Amino acid sequence: MIPSPYFLYLGSSDDSVGIKTSRGLAEFRRADCVGEFRHDASPLTLGLPRLTMAEAAAAGARTLVLGIAKAGGAIGEEMIADAAEALRNGMNVAAGLHRRLRDIPELAALAREGGLQLFDVREPPADLPIGTGYARPGNRLLTVGTDCSVGKMYASLALTQALRERGVAADFRATGQTGILIAGAGVPVDAVVADFISGAIEALTPARDDEGWDVIEGQGSLFHPSFAGVSTGLLHGAQASALLLCHDPARETMRGLAGRSLPELGQCLEANLRVARLTSPDVRAVGVCLNTSTLDESAGLAICAEVSATLGLPCTDPMRFGLDTIVDELLCPANFTPATTASL
Amino acid sequence: MIPSPYFLYLGSSDDSVGIKTSRGLAEFRRADCVGEFRHDASPLTLGLPRLTMAEAAAAGARTLVLGIAKAGGAIGEEMIADAAEALRNGMNVAAGLHRRLRDIPELAALAREGGLQLFDVREPPADLPIGTGYARPGNRLLTVGTDCSVGKMYASLALTQALRERGVAADFRATGQTGILIAGAGVPVDAVVADFISGAIEALTPARDDEGWDVIEGQGSLFHPSFAGVSTGLLHGAQASALLLCHDPARETMRGLAGRSLPELGQCLEANLRVARLTSPDVRAVGVCLNTSTLDESAGLAICAEVSATLGLPCTDPMRFGLDTIVDELLCPANFTPATTASL
Repeated sequence: MIPSPYFLYLGSSDDSVGIKTSRGLAEFRRADCVGEFRHDASPLTLGLPRLTMAEAAAAGARTLVLGIAKAGGAIGEEMIADAAEALRNGMNVAAGLHRRLRDIPELAALAREGGLQLFDVREPPADLPIGTGYARPGNRLLTVGTDCSVGKMYASLALTQALRERGVAADFRATGQTGILIAGAGVPVDAVVADFISGAIEALTPARDDEGWDVIEGQGSLFHPSFAGVSTGLLHGAQASALLLCHDPARETMRGLAGRSLPELGQCLEANLRVARLTSPDVRAVGVCLNTSTLDESAGLAICAEVSATLGLPCTDPMRFGLDTIVDELLCPANFTPATTASL
Repeated sequence: MIPSPYFLYLGSSDDSVGIKTSRGLAEFRRADCVGEFRHDASPLTLGLPRLTMAEAAAAGARTLVLGIAKAGGAIGEEMIADAAEALRNGMNVAAGLHRRLRDIPELAALAREGGLQLFDVREPPADLPIGTGYARPGNRLLTVGTDCSVGKMYASLALTQALRERGVAADFRATGQTGILIAGAGVPVDAVVADFISGAIEALTPARDDEGWDVIEGQGSLFHPSFAGVSTGLLHGAQASALLLCHDPARETMRGLAGRSLPELGQCLEANLRVARLTSPDVRAVGVCLNTSTLDESAGLAICAEVSATLGLPCTDPMRFGLDTIVDELLCPANFTPATTASL
């Protein structure tokens, strides 16, 4: 629906977490990405060729993806100027920000003149239902987190892939702009009207009667005071039989909130299970996914083993060590024996 | 801002809870209401004169208030026809539904032709901030509930009045369409974009440095799977030092959800305190308000005494027995001694 190949925007960002939409596309749709755009002020790279707007258009890029975000989805003057330049070079523009591209007169006019399209991925569908919490059939897993941007989407995508490799039907259900751009469908749950949070997720993951799994991308955190309402409605709408906890051990404070520390993993898991039980009384935790990219391999393995022993659940870095233990636990709950502290 | 006197709409409703906006105006702004409009199908009344649209206009009504609601804020064909008739009779029309009056072409055209206004009270302000949870000064109390429509707004308005009668500065902070119509200001929190729930409440109740209280109208319930996301964000944004639990002992199932029972009062209070502690670590419960209107006076007193003894907190029906015990507890926490079971 959004024409590829994509040209990925980093702008002047020096926030490696804030570029997660561009990075997610580079990771999961790499064959569809021709390059990256960044100003000299940005020290970041996705490992793609650095191109100008004109070079990207010449290389065949059809759409500039404004894949960077600040909390609240603001859009700055520099980004608008860059989007205008992309339109002048014949590219469409896609974004997942709260402020809509088509509400920016300069961009709307350029798109009209050039016969190009502006894609606002964060616009929720009309006519969402109110959630009910009524029990519905189907296997559903929801990723939850200690914070925003700790790997819930990566874990969800990797788990979907791992299940399929075992011959189990699985569908990734996107709830954020990056996931929607990657999957080509989904509901931007943080952009729906507050009364419809759980209903939006019920609509995204209707009853299924095969043995397959809906793997639902979580958002925010019950412990993030900006966004916990979204996380709560997601838990109730998902009606998940399994929760997968995601965490970034390098994160020192809650994203965007100076001085607020992250919850303990066990405390976070218990709070999520407690909220989830309102609509899924038998929900259970099936594992923990850590983002260990700031650690060397042995330190990464060690922290996974430590968390596993502490919580009595499989723990892995899905991008580094695979998801076998978690898939085992999900499909055959009796199988998992946590490592003892002595064996670490 | 919305011209009074008001003409209150009941339509064909036979849902005594669903007419809560019309009833709230009749209760708290009675001097500004000239009458009620209802079809023969409605067995309900607010005790105001039943008038036709033409009679109401002749009696001086300036605005028809569509003060009835279904879950999700839908608006039916009959209501649209009645609103059109009000406009033809020279009245403005106000509503607090998710679907906006001005998005209904027939009503927009009639308003334009008649030089009249359509008021959509449920439209949130633009440019709401993202919540932060950073500590801010001021005394804030939030009403919370076992369910939707159990008296949170009534309790909040009555408590504001009771505090003022004690010489304590107090401001009612409206978060729903009825409260906003009564107070003339507020934020319709269930209509804001999900990312901004807690931020909307932080903006509604900024730091205050007097000894007075912001009395914040709660919404929904942590135990209502349709709306708990809103309730969660409200708790985090309110950063309340005091919670007041509201309950309707006649309610058999959660509003709109067949077969789902209400939580126990103690369980509900504990869950609300747990969520509230994320942004207000020292939050405490100061009492329980019951809607005992379906009981006779002695039965109403007895159930209040029973709840008080069980929870160790003052309990009252604010519309029937006043709020003295709760104001005492709020202002002088050491004062309350719960009744013993023996004294019931």
